[in-house]
Amino acid sequence: MSQSTTIEEQDKKTVTLDALYALISSDLKKVDTFIIDRVKTEVPLISDVARHIIASGGKRIRPALTLISAQLCHYEGSRHIPLAATVEFIHTATLLHDDVVDESKLRRGLATANEIFGNKASVLVGDFLLSQAFQIMVSDGSLKALKILSDAAAIISKGEVMQLMTEGQPETTIENYLQVVSAKTAVLFAAACELGATIAGQERYEEPLREFGIYIGIAFQLVDDVLDYIAETSSLGKNIGDDFQEGKITLPVILAYSAGTREEKVFWIRTLAELEQRPDDFDHALTLLHKHSAIEQTIAMAERYCAKARTSLNGFAPSKAKSAMLDIVDFCVQRLY
Amino acid sequence: MSQSTTIEEQDKKTVTLDALYALISSDLKKVDTFIIDRVKTEVPLISDVARHIIASGGKRIRPALTLISAQLCHYEGSRHIPLAATVEFIHTATLLHDDVVDESKLRRGLATANEIFGNKASVLVGDFLLSQAFQIMVSDGSLKALKILSDAAAIISKGEVMQLMTEGQPETTIENYLQVVSAKTAVLFAAACELGATIAGQERYEEPLREFGIYIGIAFQLVDDVLDYIAETSSLGKNIGDDFQEGKITLPVILAYSAGTREEKVFWIRTLAELEQRPDDFDHALTLLHKHSAIEQTIAMAERYCAKARTSLNGFAPSKAKSAMLDIVDFCVQRLY
Repeated sequence: MSQSTTIEEQDKKTVTLDALYALISSDLKKVDTFIIDRVKTEVPLISDVARHIIASGGKRIRPALTLISAQLCHYEGSRHIPLAATVEFIHTATLLHDDVVDESKLRRGLATANEIFGNKASVLVGDFLLSQAFQIMVSDGSLKALKILSDAAAIISKGEVMQLMTEGQPETTIENYLQVVSAKTAVLFAAACELGATIAGQERYEEPLREFGIYIGIAFQLVDDVLDYIAETSSLGKNIGDDFQEGKITLPVILAYSAGTREEKVFWIRTLAELEQRPDDFDHALTLLHKHSAIEQTIAMAERYCAKARTSLNGFAPSKAKSAMLDIVDFCVQRLY
Repeated sequence: MSQSTTIEEQDKKTVTLDALYALISSDLKKVDTFIIDRVKTEVPLISDVARHIIASGGKRIRPALTLISAQLCHYEGSRHIPLAATVEFIHTATLLHDDVVDESKLRRGLATANEIFGNKASVLVGDFLLSQAFQIMVSDGSLKALKILSDAAAIISKGEVMQLMTEGQPETTIENYLQVVSAKTAVLFAAACELGATIAGQERYEEPLREFGIYIGIAFQLVDDVLDYIAETSSLGKNIGDDFQEGKITLPVILAYSAGTREEKVFWIRTLAELEQRPDDFDHALTLLHKHSAIEQTIAMAERYCAKARTSLNGFAPSKAKSAMLDIVDFCVQRLY
């Protein structure tokens, strides 16, 4: 969870998430302990799969959002720990099923659970983690928190099916794509943030925090879409070219396809819909993305969502927590440089 | 849903579920309508998969248990309809994931959803149905009902993983097998029954109804295990030999294996663990099951669980609902004759 990534000197100010993680580090440790305890079962396969995916789980950005939102709302109890864990369980269950559906072999440079343990275990342990999430929520005892998270789970699963239906269709509209991204990714960010206000009993902050989560969630996904084509190394946990190789239709592709010549459209169909890929296709894809400024347009859109995220926090007085949340916004786009 | 199966004349009295379905038919129609409404979404694939699996869904025994248990406890509201639907959603989600995990091609003589729509759609629509189940429970607003069903979902998913771990292991113990059956099958029967007492506010009946569900659930599964080897036709929705073909370790096999000679053990390992099957292997398996009275022993065990199920209802005064529930017990074993 070290944030000491070396980032090249540049014009923009260098933002880290150090301040964020300093504010929540003790809570985040409690979340990790809580998670590890919940996946300790008498069924070794469950613990093995769950530990594998949780250990390879990056920055814990979703539970971090719950923890920092709770701080922002001056929450002083201990319910944020299990609820942040719930958010991570829902996310992890989704990852497990996603990797089965996408037939992914690598995630953040490590073999996926389905590669190591098989699809069967990934499907069933995903179900187990989801059911754990609901058990934790029920123990928490707040119907409001339950509603936020069960609605999120329902929208995520609908978004997953919608994405399955756009598979291999570069003619997907921008609107449709953003709808999928909202449902698949941003809704859980939104729920994670909203929970902070809910448990603090600060009803008036639920909506702005929810909006913050939606906007930052979309921005993160769009930046990820870009990184999958232009990341210099895999140090950020992205393996360059994965989306292309898997035929994923992301915003840069949608933009380049819609602006493309007939010949270019044929290229995208062959490589992404029919998955018939030759050695220099990825380089050609990059050329086409640059030709139509698809990367720049995607970044510009991500920046617009970042601006909206910042605006969502306008109603909050200055605080360390607020600064840390604004850092998340800056960090999101800075990953590109 | 007609129960007019022709059953050969025999010594035992002929039991149908007609009385049961007469008592709950109007409620069960409401459950069906409720289910169909909930799977109507703007995402056609969800509706298609969900309708396929729900339409091929047999007797709706689980929601029927919730409805009849509610009647037994003199419940007079309308919460039993959505909660019975929840039970069916959890069951259906499990079926979808089960068929992916088992690579099943047929269920009740119809192509499985994974055969028609693919594994990806089955995984994701299963997730959708499970999330619907939780949304419905949250709308119901009872934390007690939520606890019953989220605990059931957690135990089911643990049972599924446990079953995965016994795959291809005929040396599994009877105790271990019964534990898997309890978790995978009986727990949802138990939750379905317990809910009837819970919504009626009859706390003292929660435990006996839960027990009834566990016992009848185990009995049903054991009878299914037997039918998979000896059913005359597939009219009961079982395809004879499916379990054998898929290498499923069920109680008859466990009994025959543990009593078998070294040569017989080699046969079971080759056919069920290594899935190397020759044309007359199924007949030989039947011979071995009969040699060791494995079928008879499994039936005897199912009958013991049926007796326990009957005893669980001792505390209830005679009523039409009670008779209908006792019919379910009789019907369970009668499917064999």
